[in-house]
Amino acid sequence: MQALENNVEKPIREKMEQYILSLQERIVKEIESIDNKKFYIDRWERAQGGYGISCILQDGNVFEKAGVNISVVSGDLPKPAIQQMKSHHKELDPSKGPLPFFALGISIVIHPHNPHAPTIHMNYRYFEIENKDGSPLSWWFGGGSDLTPSYLYEDDAIHFHKTLKDACDKHDPNYYPDFKKWCDEYFYLKHRSEARGVGGIFFDDLDNKPPEKILAFVKQCGDSFLPSYVPLVKRRMNATFTAEEKRWQQLRRGRYVEFNLVWDRGTKFGLQTPGARIESIFMSLPLTARWEYMHIPEKNSREDKLMQVLKHPKNWV
Amino acid sequence: MQALENNVEKPIREKMEQYILSLQERIVKEIESIDNKKFYIDRWERAQGGYGISCILQDGNVFEKAGVNISVVSGDLPKPAIQQMKSHHKELDPSKGPLPFFALGISIVIHPHNPHAPTIHMNYRYFEIENKDGSPLSWWFGGGSDLTPSYLYEDDAIHFHKTLKDACDKHDPNYYPDFKKWCDEYFYLKHRSEARGVGGIFFDDLDNKPPEKILAFVKQCGDSFLPSYVPLVKRRMNATFTAEEKRWQQLRRGRYVEFNLVWDRGTKFGLQTPGARIESIFMSLPLTARWEYMHIPEKNSREDKLMQVLKHPKNWV
Repeated sequence: MQALENNVEKPIREKMEQYILSLQERIVKEIESIDNKKFYIDRWERAQGGYGISCILQDGNVFEKAGVNISVVSGDLPKPAIQQMKSHHKELDPSKGPLPFFALGISIVIHPHNPHAPTIHMNYRYFEIENKDGSPLSWWFGGGSDLTPSYLYEDDAIHFHKTLKDACDKHDPNYYPDFKKWCDEYFYLKHRSEARGVGGIFFDDLDNKPPEKILAFVKQCGDSFLPSYVPLVKRRMNATFTAEEKRWQQLRRGRYVEFNLVWDRGTKFGLQTPGARIESIFMSLPLTARWEYMHIPEKNSREDKLMQVLKHPKNWV
Repeated sequence: MQALENNVEKPIREKMEQYILSLQERIVKEIESIDNKKFYIDRWERAQGGYGISCILQDGNVFEKAGVNISVVSGDLPKPAIQQMKSHHKELDPSKGPLPFFALGISIVIHPHNPHAPTIHMNYRYFEIENKDGSPLSWWFGGGSDLTPSYLYEDDAIHFHKTLKDACDKHDPNYYPDFKKWCDEYFYLKHRSEARGVGGIFFDDLDNKPPEKILAFVKQCGDSFLPSYVPLVKRRMNATFTAEEKRWQQLRRGRYVEFNLVWDRGTKFGLQTPGARIESIFMSLPLTARWEYMHIPEKNSREDKLMQVLKHPKNWV
């Protein structure tokens, strides 16, 4: 971990807060302009400290459900939570807890109606722990973005990965290869032996450069969200589709629910946190989902072609 | 634990197997006669030992999804699994593992189309562990049945509980009160602070009477399944309903998925078991489900009345 205070006028967490607020606004505006329906904007306060803004668009013209959420929370981190974080942050000493913490982030999940348009997820977050006297102790960034199509369009997967790779490469040549691999490993349904989607990037506990540098990288990633996704939605949102294709999409939505409820660490952590805001955590769930017994796509069908890629994640760029 | 071999001609596990096979057949026939559509019957073998029969009816005339599953499996129980079971079965010694085990049970989940007809779940199972020389070491029964309506009909809840209580009372006056409470505690969504439904009975690790006696009790419970449920379905399956009522049912289905994927120990155990048959585990999931942001029923609406009972489980008999 590098020191926090290398000639920074404002604390990093304030800069991150400012950034996610402006990014949320930009993304909400752009999604609204595509959908022609307004988000419902829900600002909430957290009793123990902090606030959030949940923007939600349900049953729109283009999007089945879109959630663009930010939260900026603070409080005291109990000893067991410090213990959990210690494996990645040696400077933490659980016996000194509870310790003041700040956690802020932006989370987005967008599920379009059209089965040919992919679902996207993005999350960037910053975490900071202080000593009891208020001096900085530990901080890190985490996040990523990944794409979950119901039908595979190789061009879409390539465009998505290329946009993320370009953002990564401006900051570190290892970021994209490392974080692409991490993403494939993280968004994986072990009980199905299949990936959630065609991947993207994922990282956590990132603190090996000065915080200003990592913040610049995270901003680059956040800025690449709209360019990575909007062209794909525009390309697919008006495609004609059959009832069978819609049904397949609904089955894939079921898999999305399975991942989020069974495997996603963020969701699990949230559900076990007393006083967590369940509705904001579950914004990521699709509006509708479906489970059928033993639905196996026909060999070499378009559905089967998606499954092949989910069973054997590939390199897109 | 009582001895297994008190003047029993056939081993208990064979009697239980015979019983669940015949119960499955009876229930499948009755549900088919109500729905006027046939179950899809899927017999499978388990590579490590044993078999199962999954009967599934999807998108029927009355039922959205009905799964009636039995499994009869055996193999070697590894040390960590024995360790987990030791807390309830002192005679188990993990250091002696792996040990031969037998596990058999019947599992049912039925989701009707009509939002006024309730979902039902039932499961009865028998578990046995042997010493390496084949002599009996440990055995127990577990199971229960619970009802999950989208709209509360007090008469239905009373009928359901009364049928289960009558079955329990024939065997032990403590069974119903104890197992009713256990059910309320088990089928509970901690992250929502609400029960899954109006409860029923639930028990596990039952071995405090001779196995023949507990088997007789389990049979009584299994036999009470159709009388506890069929009258309710017949009463509600043709009720008229609005699009809003269907939507509410779909939201409640979402809660059902949340419970099964986040909290249900059986599901969690299954998902973490290498080689587990995922499709049989997920038979319990509804065909369709829905999640909306911050859907809160209007005060004193019928939807709100259900919520009041889920927030504060009550005694029905």
